[in-house]
Amino acid sequence: MTAVGVDVGGTKIHALAVSGGAAIHDTRAPTPHESDEPPGGALADAVLDVVVTVADRAGVDLAETPIGVGLPGMMSREGELVFAPNLRSANGTRLADRLAERAPGLQVLCENDADCAAVAEQRLGVARGFSDVLMVTLGTGIGGGVISGGQLVRGRSGFAGEIGHMIVDAHGPRCPCGRRGCWERFASGAGVARLAHEAALAGRLPELVARCGSADAVRGEDVTAAAAAGSAEALEVIDEVGWWLALGIANLVGILDSAVVVVGGGLSEVTGLLLPPARRHLHALLEGAGARGDVPVVGAALGERAGAIGAALLAEEFFG
Amino acid sequence: MTAVGVDVGGTKIHALAVSGGAAIHDTRAPTPHESDEPPGGALADAVLDVVVTVADRAGVDLAETPIGVGLPGMMSREGELVFAPNLRSANGTRLADRLAERAPGLQVLCENDADCAAVAEQRLGVARGFSDVLMVTLGTGIGGGVISGGQLVRGRSGFAGEIGHMIVDAHGPRCPCGRRGCWERFASGAGVARLAHEAALAGRLPELVARCGSADAVRGEDVTAAAAAGSAEALEVIDEVGWWLALGIANLVGILDSAVVVVGGGLSEVTGLLLPPARRHLHALLEGAGARGDVPVVGAALGERAGAIGAALLAEEFFG
Repeated sequence: MTAVGVDVGGTKIHALAVSGGAAIHDTRAPTPHESDEPPGGALADAVLDVVVTVADRAGVDLAETPIGVGLPGMMSREGELVFAPNLRSANGTRLADRLAERAPGLQVLCENDADCAAVAEQRLGVARGFSDVLMVTLGTGIGGGVISGGQLVRGRSGFAGEIGHMIVDAHGPRCPCGRRGCWERFASGAGVARLAHEAALAGRLPELVARCGSADAVRGEDVTAAAAAGSAEALEVIDEVGWWLALGIANLVGILDSAVVVVGGGLSEVTGLLLPPARRHLHALLEGAGARGDVPVVGAALGERAGAIGAALLAEEFFG
Repeated sequence: MTAVGVDVGGTKIHALAVSGGAAIHDTRAPTPHESDEPPGGALADAVLDVVVTVADRAGVDLAETPIGVGLPGMMSREGELVFAPNLRSANGTRLADRLAERAPGLQVLCENDADCAAVAEQRLGVARGFSDVLMVTLGTGIGGGVISGGQLVRGRSGFAGEIGHMIVDAHGPRCPCGRRGCWERFASGAGVARLAHEAALAGRLPELVARCGSADAVRGEDVTAAAAAGSAEALEVIDEVGWWLALGIANLVGILDSAVVVVGGGLSEVTGLLLPPARRHLHALLEGAGARGDVPVVGAALGERAGAIGAALLAEEFFG
């Protein structure tokens, strides 16, 4: 059976067909941000477009093909995107309804994107064979998906897995969400940028400041690139971000007793740098670590395809 | 059917029989703290004693009665108490084995005490009818039990629900566990004592300091008693502890999307004071609160019996 999976991000839409556990026929399109009423019309047009493209390439009849869509925000069990900070124009969208208006009869399931990635990694990726999986997706913020006893943890309304706004530093920096010290202020792409800026201002990045012209000119990408090239001062900032990544993972493993932690998302080059320090710091930050087995922290195997693959798998399961 | 439930705390052991969903025939004994080899012999003697007492009173044959035991620490799926900070002499105990040596043929299931309380409140208590429940037990520390989709979340090894050592203030006060800023430093019985001491030293409790003789003499119980009597300065400290309680609950509801939060444990008089401020602060601390339904934070209905009742229910389910 073939299913189509779509991953809607803040900047691009990625669609593919999944058949026999393998992804075939990728396609991509930019994410529209037009506001319309009811919300999500432009998004539905763009999603339908990539779905038709990938179905044509796979040679499948859309009327008989389950379609899964991963969306970047809090998804209700009724399929409404109720809160999407990086896709505000789509807040309140029932995408399946918008698609049904355009192409009656489609079988569409919408889910949170990190939940989709968790399912993909557990069924086909690096967490295969594990029943208790924590998926952490690093991007501008942090998304999460939790599998417990082989089941996706959805919660009352489908909102479970909102791990990025776990407060880890109650008196810490302001978060755009309005509170202070959320985990994603420290351990995401935004966290690298913030801690890099702080380090530059504190005189801890003299070489980079000289190269960039001023402390204010040092961006997260500069630190990432310098760290990848072996700069000791940049690696110290990466180590700090890795410590924060480990801290949040330790909190979550304490709550969930996950057997494996998969770190994915759009920042694969940053993730590669962060994983070694995160692993190094985890033991000291995890309660009762000595009494637990090893908790591997691994990079996602399916890369940026994980969200779309998982969406397809969930749709296949739901409609199949 | 009748089952026997036992709740082992740091200071006392509480046993009761459960029949038709109602608790009958309570008994109590002090918790022994002798170290023996293999560990847990004295504990097994004491538990067997209360189990025999309560079975006699209920008129049931122990050979045909499921026995559940709730223990205060990380319980492995194999029934070993691997890490019990408040019952160190029992670290490493396989209590079911120790009981079987003393009374062959007993049907014994051991579980984490807060997990037992969560099950009791969900089946028979204040969370009846909810599938997604967060149980928070306040004592010297904080214990937790999570029910998701109607199932107890156990995790890989049975250790899930260790919520008290979630780090919420990364640069905060040292915790006996070796790390900094664990939630239970702020929102447990120990948290009331610590924040009371800080407030006294900072001159925020002038009346209580005058009454107790010095800032160092002000204990948590003094603040609790004064707050219960309506003292404005004491209620401010309670409000602060309630804020921390709400912060940790907000983190956990974000991760788990619980439909209801049940707060129980041994500090019922403190809990009664903390719930109103915790409820007041929760909305501002919970991500996407406006998009979620109300999340009630309620006191446990089964009180200090919850652990023993839940242990009996789980044993009945397992052996029944």
